[in-house]
Amino acid sequence: MENRQQSEPCVIGLDFGSDSVRALLVNARSGAELASGVAEYPRWKEGKYCQPARSQFRHHPKDYLESMTQAIQDAVAQVSADIAHSVVGIGVDSTGSTPAPIDADGQVLALRPEFADNPNAMFILWKDHTSVSMAERINQLAHSNDFPDYTRYVGGIYSSEWFWAKAAWVSEQDAEVAQHAYSWVELCDWVPAILSGHQHPEQLRRGVCAAGHKVMWHESWGGLPSEAFLTAVSPTLAGLRERMYHDVYTADQVAGYLTDEWAAQLGLPAGIAIAVGEFDCHMGAVGAGAGAHDLVKVIGTSTCDILMVDPQQVADKAIAGICGQVLGSALPNMTALEAGQSAFGDIYAWYKRLLVWPVEQYLRDHPEVSFDLAEFENALIPQLTQAAAALEEGGNQALAVDWHNGRRTPNANQRLKGAIAELNLGSTAVDLFAGLVEATAHGAKAIVDCFVSQGVDVNRLIAIGGISQKSPYVMQTCANVIGREIVVAESEQCCALGAAIFAAVAAGVYATTQDAQTQMASPISRTYVPTATQSNLRESRYTMYRHLGQSLEQLSQDRLDDSLSKEDA
Amino acid sequence: MENRQQSEPCVIGLDFGSDSVRALLVNARSGAELASGVAEYPRWKEGKYCQPARSQFRHHPKDYLESMTQAIQDAVAQVSADIAHSVVGIGVDSTGSTPAPIDADGQVLALRPEFADNPNAMFILWKDHTSVSMAERINQLAHSNDFPDYTRYVGGIYSSEWFWAKAAWVSEQDAEVAQHAYSWVELCDWVPAILSGHQHPEQLRRGVCAAGHKVMWHESWGGLPSEAFLTAVSPTLAGLRERMYHDVYTADQVAGYLTDEWAAQLGLPAGIAIAVGEFDCHMGAVGAGAGAHDLVKVIGTSTCDILMVDPQQVADKAIAGICGQVLGSALPNMTALEAGQSAFGDIYAWYKRLLVWPVEQYLRDHPEVSFDLAEFENALIPQLTQAAAALEEGGNQALAVDWHNGRRTPNANQRLKGAIAELNLGSTAVDLFAGLVEATAHGAKAIVDCFVSQGVDVNRLIAIGGISQKSPYVMQTCANVIGREIVVAESEQCCALGAAIFAAVAAGVYATTQDAQTQMASPISRTYVPTATQSNLRESRYTMYRHLGQSLEQLSQDRLDDSLSKEDA
Repeated sequence: MENRQQSEPCVIGLDFGSDSVRALLVNARSGAELASGVAEYPRWKEGKYCQPARSQFRHHPKDYLESMTQAIQDAVAQVSADIAHSVVGIGVDSTGSTPAPIDADGQVLALRPEFADNPNAMFILWKDHTSVSMAERINQLAHSNDFPDYTRYVGGIYSSEWFWAKAAWVSEQDAEVAQHAYSWVELCDWVPAILSGHQHPEQLRRGVCAAGHKVMWHESWGGLPSEAFLTAVSPTLAGLRERMYHDVYTADQVAGYLTDEWAAQLGLPAGIAIAVGEFDCHMGAVGAGAGAHDLVKVIGTSTCDILMVDPQQVADKAIAGICGQVLGSALPNMTALEAGQSAFGDIYAWYKRLLVWPVEQYLRDHPEVSFDLAEFENALIPQLTQAAAALEEGGNQALAVDWHNGRRTPNANQRLKGAIAELNLGSTAVDLFAGLVEATAHGAKAIVDCFVSQGVDVNRLIAIGGISQKSPYVMQTCANVIGREIVVAESEQCCALGAAIFAAVAAGVYATTQDAQTQMASPISRTYVPTATQSNLRESRYTMYRHLGQSLEQLSQDRLDDSLSKEDA
Repeated sequence: MENRQQSEPCVIGLDFGSDSVRALLVNARSGAELASGVAEYPRWKEGKYCQPARSQFRHHPKDYLESMTQAIQDAVAQVSADIAHSVVGIGVDSTGSTPAPIDADGQVLALRPEFADNPNAMFILWKDHTSVSMAERINQLAHSNDFPDYTRYVGGIYSSEWFWAKAAWVSEQDAEVAQHAYSWVELCDWVPAILSGHQHPEQLRRGVCAAGHKVMWHESWGGLPSEAFLTAVSPTLAGLRERMYHDVYTADQVAGYLTDEWAAQLGLPAGIAIAVGEFDCHMGAVGAGAGAHDLVKVIGTSTCDILMVDPQQVADKAIAGICGQVLGSALPNMTALEAGQSAFGDIYAWYKRLLVWPVEQYLRDHPEVSFDLAEFENALIPQLTQAAAALEEGGNQALAVDWHNGRRTPNANQRLKGAIAELNLGSTAVDLFAGLVEATAHGAKAIVDCFVSQGVDVNRLIAIGGISQKSPYVMQTCANVIGREIVVAESEQCCALGAAIFAAVAAGVYATTQDAQTQMASPISRTYVPTATQSNLRESRYTMYRHLGQSLEQLSQDRLDDSLSKEDA
């Protein structure tokens, strides 16, 4: 056994999440997960550089570097030296769009002493919505007659969660940063560049995933949007296009090779292949074993949904209301359609914080009271879940809208906000929780409907991510509300596993990503089947959800129109 | 001093609230409050006969009798025997519309052994909304061409909180009750009848307040609505009209005289005057010293708002969207316009229950943990209030609609429900509380606007009731949102004081109610002045509240139309 493992190549998948990074050490032949290390981002954990009330969320690059080092070291420490020496490649996935400004040497600005504490010089986390007005400007310009519709392959609506809105917004807010930002880089491109010493803008290889889905890169208009367009978005972007990039790469290709310095620090062989990076959900779809017409939902704080189709099927057809359609952003030879919900588990966590506040406050005012706040907090979601699962369907549940972090799909709109309606004096904490869970399931159904109504079939629903593993109640609610079976992948780390699959291809263990996927991807562990009854009730609840949502959207639009007309006046 | 008090007549005001009854013993010359007793309703406190999730709220008549006895005995025990002997009259006010079915002897059915535990044989508390569909039927008929518009003087919309909707609904739900219900009685009419031994339907004196505001009694159509109308509302009402009543009385008149049995039990002189009853808020307006164009808000679990005007001003004019306009329902020579909010403090209490649930649940699962739940619960609203008062106006507050118990005014609609919108992941427990308080203030402003927009001036806002005394934060928010000064009456018991004022008139201490009011009504203790800044912001928040409300109302109407058209199909 030991001998066989020595002879078999291993790979590492690195998965950068919102709160922590995971390093998954995998046998590149079997896909067996041999070891895993997780490290939280230390500054983020302290709440640094963030302002949740205005949706400002920033990550310091040191958080990534330190926690990545820790996570890999932890994983490597769990295996024998032989296995550590048999690592042949590293794959990288990350959240996104999570861009940062870099200088002419490829250094993220916040790593320079003068920008060390400037949130605008850091990575702007996917869920940061400070640039809502800038996204609207991009949409206005792209939908005017002055330019090609650069939003055509990103669902028709540019989001404040994405690259250009963030780069332009920060550049307008912060002249110092704008002046020193030679270029900008996505986290999933930056990490492979750092590990291979290729962070210099000339050497930095950009993945098609981030470029196609978030940077409006498309072959048909010669790569990035035109200089004229970008300058119209913001004069602060002038000249940036030429300093950015022209070529993009799929994740089965090599970004570079591990430097001696990093090899020594991480306890890995120098010179091993570093694959080009992708966003987490795209690699997750690959790790979950998805093929054409499997809708993979990565369900965590938010969801990212990937549906792969034959490139021929959507060659000339732009699918509206989604986040993007990019050839090669997941499996290299398929077009991956991306969608998602801006908040999912985050909404449950929000509700938990709300319910914990009074106790926190009370304990602060009464230091003499002994009460285990952490245990109380940990028990809360299980408690609510148990009580909600016992509710009668169609009882007194609240009716909520899952837009606490805006709406990503269908039809991105980050000005939208969450709501809880149908409240009466008998509505309990459990009725609200059940309503919030139902709202996230309704949001999931809206995405399935968005694809199917445009002729893109969904044959199978695959769920991965923390909530798919941890909450049968949420998953069963999703199956009931969507009215379809949902299968759950066995691996708890499909994204990292997908990254490991690409590492194996980049390292030459397999000829194609499909070959690697066949050997290494996760099996299915569980199937949720919709319960047979109540379909009329569910249909009418979904109709109520849609109508409530339409009303709230209209109010938001009216208010925007009103404030714009006041500005004009 | 003792001698002088001996020689001065005293009166008792009895105020029946939602949870308890209060007996206020008052010097009939000076209005000085000499003693007070409060007793909670024991069965109600245990949650008996109620189903909050479907808005069923019932009071057992024994709750009233037992707690009234207790409250008066407690008050009497606090004063000397001389003072007790100098009591010359009792006045009564109560919540309403709170009707109960009575048999041919005037006995409330639930006092008969065979109906002792039947919620349909009890008093149907004002906030019971089980009869929503029946109220809609009444409105349909009243607005058809087949009948006079009997809703003309009750604001144009009949409410499920009111007499006929409740009587008809219960009669259709419960054939036994319908068969034995010789007549129906309002709580404020029943108590004087009981104390004076006049509960027999032939002797029972009905007040104009309940009759005019809730039973659609009006001189212009000969008293109660026609037999044909009532039978059209429900065949179960057939014959009831003839057994009800023709004449109505103002509260300065005598309902009867205290029986020997009650006098002995209560420790009061037999034969003293019992005044005709009125609803609490009408007597509260009198107790607060209100005159023409003073809008008195009784702010408690809900609000009841009274605005008195010269009868000439509204003689031929029906004010739309309010709860009623009745000559003599407050001061005998003025027309009192009634409005109100179906939930006010109830919404804060609802939120408190929501926040307390996790702790209750946790302590149930962890009996080993010692934690003073009651103290935690009591600290909660003060805690939230303190934190909310420290928020920046226009920060991240939620935007709520105060319809958790339906909407009373403007334009009664009990199908409406509460909602909390404008939520993001940074919304805190305090942001929601601030939003709920603002929503109740917005609801208050909507009522002022309803009057003013129909040409009925509001010159002064007077607040009475628990919240006006206890929460400067809520009162200041109301003043800011409404944009007007609010004065608070000093007496914490203006309703009971008003009842005492009428007792003094009925007993002949004064010639007119105005004379009694001048001597006995409460002074003003505090004035809330709107803070000067932020009026633009407040205006735009109010606009958002109205628009959100309009949308929710439209959704509710669409759903109703849809379900009616399905029933037809």
